[in-house]
Amino acid sequence: MYRSHNCGQLRMSDVGSEVTLSGWVQKGRDLGGLTFVDLRDRYGITQLVFNMDEDDDLCTKARKMGREYVVQATGMVKERSSKNPNRATGDIEIEVSSFNVLNESKVPPFSIEDETDGGDDLRMKFRYLDIRRSPIQNNIIFRSKLSLETRKYLSDQGFIEVETPFLIKSTPEGARDFVVPSRLNQGQFYALPQSPQTFKQILMVAGIDKYFQIVKCFRDEDLRADRQPEFTQIDCEMSFVHIEDILSTFEGLAKHLFKHTLGIQLEDFPRISYDEALQKYGSDKPDLRFDMSFVEMNTFAKHPGFSLFDEAELIVGICAKGIAEQYSNKDLKDLTEWLQRPQIGAKGLVYVKYQADGSIKSTIGKFYSDEVLLSWAEKFGATKGDILFILCGETEKTRKQLSELRLELGRNLGLMKAVDFKPLWVLDFPLLEWDEEAGRFHAMHHPFTSPKKDDIPRMLNGDHDTMKSLKADAYDLVINGAEIGGGSIRIHDRALQSRNFDLLGFSKEEAEAQFGFLLGAFEYGAPPHGGLAFGFDRLCAVMNGQSSIRDFIAFPKNNQGRDMMIDAPSAIHDVQLKELCLEVKVDKKV
Amino acid sequence: MYRSHNCGQLRMSDVGSEVTLSGWVQKGRDLGGLTFVDLRDRYGITQLVFNMDEDDDLCTKARKMGREYVVQATGMVKERSSKNPNRATGDIEIEVSSFNVLNESKVPPFSIEDETDGGDDLRMKFRYLDIRRSPIQNNIIFRSKLSLETRKYLSDQGFIEVETPFLIKSTPEGARDFVVPSRLNQGQFYALPQSPQTFKQILMVAGIDKYFQIVKCFRDEDLRADRQPEFTQIDCEMSFVHIEDILSTFEGLAKHLFKHTLGIQLEDFPRISYDEALQKYGSDKPDLRFDMSFVEMNTFAKHPGFSLFDEAELIVGICAKGIAEQYSNKDLKDLTEWLQRPQIGAKGLVYVKYQADGSIKSTIGKFYSDEVLLSWAEKFGATKGDILFILCGETEKTRKQLSELRLELGRNLGLMKAVDFKPLWVLDFPLLEWDEEAGRFHAMHHPFTSPKKDDIPRMLNGDHDTMKSLKADAYDLVINGAEIGGGSIRIHDRALQSRNFDLLGFSKEEAEAQFGFLLGAFEYGAPPHGGLAFGFDRLCAVMNGQSSIRDFIAFPKNNQGRDMMIDAPSAIHDVQLKELCLEVKVDKKV
Repeated sequence: MYRSHNCGQLRMSDVGSEVTLSGWVQKGRDLGGLTFVDLRDRYGITQLVFNMDEDDDLCTKARKMGREYVVQATGMVKERSSKNPNRATGDIEIEVSSFNVLNESKVPPFSIEDETDGGDDLRMKFRYLDIRRSPIQNNIIFRSKLSLETRKYLSDQGFIEVETPFLIKSTPEGARDFVVPSRLNQGQFYALPQSPQTFKQILMVAGIDKYFQIVKCFRDEDLRADRQPEFTQIDCEMSFVHIEDILSTFEGLAKHLFKHTLGIQLEDFPRISYDEALQKYGSDKPDLRFDMSFVEMNTFAKHPGFSLFDEAELIVGICAKGIAEQYSNKDLKDLTEWLQRPQIGAKGLVYVKYQADGSIKSTIGKFYSDEVLLSWAEKFGATKGDILFILCGETEKTRKQLSELRLELGRNLGLMKAVDFKPLWVLDFPLLEWDEEAGRFHAMHHPFTSPKKDDIPRMLNGDHDTMKSLKADAYDLVINGAEIGGGSIRIHDRALQSRNFDLLGFSKEEAEAQFGFLLGAFEYGAPPHGGLAFGFDRLCAVMNGQSSIRDFIAFPKNNQGRDMMIDAPSAIHDVQLKELCLEVKVDKKV
Repeated sequence: MYRSHNCGQLRMSDVGSEVTLSGWVQKGRDLGGLTFVDLRDRYGITQLVFNMDEDDDLCTKARKMGREYVVQATGMVKERSSKNPNRATGDIEIEVSSFNVLNESKVPPFSIEDETDGGDDLRMKFRYLDIRRSPIQNNIIFRSKLSLETRKYLSDQGFIEVETPFLIKSTPEGARDFVVPSRLNQGQFYALPQSPQTFKQILMVAGIDKYFQIVKCFRDEDLRADRQPEFTQIDCEMSFVHIEDILSTFEGLAKHLFKHTLGIQLEDFPRISYDEALQKYGSDKPDLRFDMSFVEMNTFAKHPGFSLFDEAELIVGICAKGIAEQYSNKDLKDLTEWLQRPQIGAKGLVYVKYQADGSIKSTIGKFYSDEVLLSWAEKFGATKGDILFILCGETEKTRKQLSELRLELGRNLGLMKAVDFKPLWVLDFPLLEWDEEAGRFHAMHHPFTSPKKDDIPRMLNGDHDTMKSLKADAYDLVINGAEIGGGSIRIHDRALQSRNFDLLGFSKEEAEAQFGFLLGAFEYGAPPHGGLAFGFDRLCAVMNGQSSIRDFIAFPKNNQGRDMMIDAPSAIHDVQLKELCLEVKVDKKV
C-alpha cells in the first residue's frame, strides 16, 4: 500500500506515530517558515506541515505542488496548536519527513469544493473531477449502501437474485426499444430490456417463487429533464401471493432501507385508492408532507346567477392555513397569473380570505354573502387567518390545476421539508385507459396486470364501457409526491391474457410473435404471482431530499442522450456496419 | 398467501397442525382407496393423501390432476405409516380436506426430474420447465448466494459498488463490440461494454479508491461451446496499491466465497510465474489437483545417432505414477494416436516403462541402455511401476502437447476430483505479444496494463526486441486449470500510456478518438491503481465442479447467439429502422 492510514482516520490517539498518507492536494498555504498542505481522499482531509527551518529542500519542493497533485507523504502525527473543530482530523497534523509526488495535475477547470463554480456541461465532461467533490461522492456511496441493504433484506426474506438477459426481443408496445443488430443472425436485432417483466414472470412459472434483481433498464424516449436512457430498477416478483403479501413485503423493504441507511424509523404506510387520491389531492402521487386536501363544493356552492360555478362540472377548493395576512393582493394576483400560464391553464382563481379580524374578503363577494362564505370556511375547517382557494371547470383538468396550486403553496410555505418522509400506497388503479385518438385501450400499468378478481367475469364478457370501469390489482408506492415504484398482481391464465391482448389492440399473430413464449408458459402450470419494481435512481434522490436523479448516477447522459465525458454515441467503422449488414441513411433535412 | 408452509418445511413436530401448501404435482399414485400426490416447490416435496373412503368426491377430483398442475391443498399433518428417509419431509404426509387447482398444465415435453430426457434444444425452448428441475434451480440459487457473499465481503473491505454505463463508445481494439444505434444522434452508435475497464480507471482518478461491480459484459464473438455473448464479471479496482495488496484482497475474497458457500477452508494460494508455469506444466493455467510436472531432458537425453532427440529444441517428459501394470501396449498405442490427432499434432510418443519387477521397457530401448533409462527414471523421481512419457520438438508446441497429455492422464487416472480445489496465482506475464502476421504487438492482458516498474525505462527507450522481453504487473487466478480471472497494475501516466498505444499500433488520432478521455484524466491527478475481474459464470461452474457455464445462467443463448425461448434476435419493424436511419442489406449469398 502507498499509505498506512487514510486522510480521515488520524486522531489525538495517533499522536507520536509515524504514518504514510496518500491523496490529493486540496490546497496549500505558505506562512513564513511553514507550509501547510491539506491532503484529501474520500475519507477526509488531513493537514500536512513542512517546516522551512528543519528541511528547506523538502519545504521548497512542497511549495511547488499544485492543487490536485497526487502525493504520498510520510511523517509524524503531532497535536495541532490551532485546532479545527469542523474537521474530524482537526486536532492533529502530520509533520512531513519525506514525500513523493505520485502524479501531477493541471489546474482543474472548476473548483473541487462542495459548492463548485463548474457548469453542468463542464462537470459532465470532467466527471472524474466532479466525483471528487463530496456531495457527488457521498451520493455514489449512499447508492452503494442502499443497494447492499436492499440485497440483504430481500435475501433474508428468501428472495433469489437472478440475472435476466440484456439481449432480448423487441416488443414495440410501450416505450421505444433500443435495438442491437445481430451479426450472427443477419438482418435481425436484439432489444435491450425496458424491464425484465416477462422474464420475471417466466421465473415464477419456473418455480423461483421469490425473485429480485437490481438491474439496468433501457428506454429510447425523448429525454426530458431527469430522464435517463438507462436507469436502474429494484425488480421483484413473488408466487402464491395476494396483494397484501406484496405490500407488506415491500413496505418492509422500504422501512428497512430508511432505517439502515438514514436511521429513520417510518410509521406504517397509509393506503389510498386511486379514485380517492384524485378526489382528495388531484394526483395519483400526492405529497402527504402537508394536508391541504381538496373539498368538493358542488353540493353547496352552486348559485343561480353565478354561471362560472353553475356551469362547472366540478367546484373544488383547498384551505391554506394562516396565510391571510401574509398574502397581499399582489401575491394573490401573481398566484392567479401563475395558474393561468399555459403549462397549467386555469381560467382564474377564486379565493375567500378569512381575515384575522373575522371578516371575509373574496373575489366572489358580490355573488355570495359573508354568511355563506363563512359557512364554506367552516366546511373547509378554516379558522381566522386562512385563505380558501377555489377552482372550477371540467373535473379532471380542475383537479390537476388545483393539485399544482396545492404543491406551489406547499413549496412557498415551506411545507415540503427534505428530511420529512411521507410514504403512501396508492391502490386500485383502473386496468385500461381509453385512447380516444388511437381508438384503442392502453394498459394503465402494463399488459400483464390482472384485473381485480371480482372484475374478471366482466372483463371476459363485458361491453366497451364496462372495460373502462375495470379495476386492476395494481399499486404504486409514493413518497413525498414522487412515484418510487409500482406493481401488480399478474394474469397467470392464458385465456385472460389473450383477452387483454385483444383489448389492447394486438392481433392474435402479434400477440403470438411477441409474447408467445409467455402465453405458452401459462399452459404448463403457471402459479398465481405478482410483483413490483422500484425506481432505484429516484429512490436514492428522494431519500436524500433531492429532486434530480442525475447526481446519483456515476456517469449520466445529458438531455441529448450523450455521454459528454467519453463523447458517445459516435460514428462507427464501415467494416463494423458491413459485418452487421447495415447502411446508415441520415436524412439530410434533419 | 396461498400457503401456510412450503413443501420442504413440515416435520414430525408439525403433526396435528392444519396447513395449506401450494405447489406443482410431481406425480400421483392411486393405491386402492388411497391417492397419493407428491407436491413440489423449490423447497422440497410433500406427500398429499386423499382417502376414497372419507371423501370420494375429493379423491376423484384429485385423480384428475396431471403432472405439473398447480395446486393449493389444505389438510392435517399426519405421521406416515411408511416413511421415506430420503426426503426431508419423508416422515409426514398431509391428509387433504380441501384443495383447488390453481392452474392446469399440459403434459411437459420432458420429465421434470434431476436426470431429464430433454435434449438441449428442448430444454432451452422450455427453459421455465428446465429451471423447475433441482440441478438447475440449485445452480441459480448458488449463483445468487455467491453474488451476495461477494458483495458482503467487498463491502466489508470498504469497496463501493458503482454502476458504470451500458451505453458507451465503440472501441474496435480487442473483441468485437455489440453496437446500439442512437435515434437522437442519427448515424451514431453506442457500444455495449466488453468490460467497464476505462470507467473503473476513471473512478480511480475520481477518488473512489475501492470500486467493485458485479456486471454484465458483452462480446460479439463467434460463439464456441461455453462462450456466451453476454456474461457476468466481478469487476474490481483499487488505488494506492501494489500488486501484493491486490493479490491478498482477492485471495481473501476467494477464500471467503469458498468458506461461506461451500464450507471449504482454502489454504494460502501458491504463486508461480508465467515462465515457470509454461516450463513446469506447459500451460499458463495449470491444474494443480495432481502433480506430474515436466522434467526437461535436454541436458541428459541427447544422444548422437538418435536424431529425434538430437535435433529437438526441447525434450521433455512427465512421470505417471503406478500405471505400468495398468497400461497395456494397446492403451499406450491409443494414447499415442490420441496425441497424433490434428487437434494436438504430436509426431509420436516416447515412453519408458519402469516395470514392477525393476526391468525397463521403452520405445527407445535400442538407442539407450537400461542403465541410462534407469538414470532418467531417477531424475523423474520415478519408482517401480511408473511410466515416463516423453515428447520432443519445438519448445512451445511440445510443451502444449505434453500439457494435453498431462491433463488426459489426469482425467483417465481420476486425479481431477470435482470437490478438490487447487487455486493458484500466475504472475509476471509478458506485456506484449508480437503478432507476426499483423506485423504489430498485441497487449497480452489489455492496453492499460503497466509494465513492471523496473521495465518502464526499457519500454520508453528500448528497441523492438526489448519490447518482446517486457514483463507486466499482471496476474491470473487459476483454479483447477480454469482461468477464474485476472488483472494488472494499470498505467497511470499519460506519457507511458501513449507509448503503449504507439506500440500497439494506434495512431495518435485513433488513441485520442477512442481513449482521449482517459489520457485526459491522467493529466488531472491520476493515482497509482490496479485491479482485476473474475469471470462470475465460470467461478460458479468451477466451484460446483462443472465444466459448462450454461446451466449457471438462467436464460443462456445457444451457439448461434439465439435465445430459443423468446426466439431472439428477430426482425424489427420498418418504422423502427427508419427512426434509426438504418437500412438492412443482407448479402443473399450468405
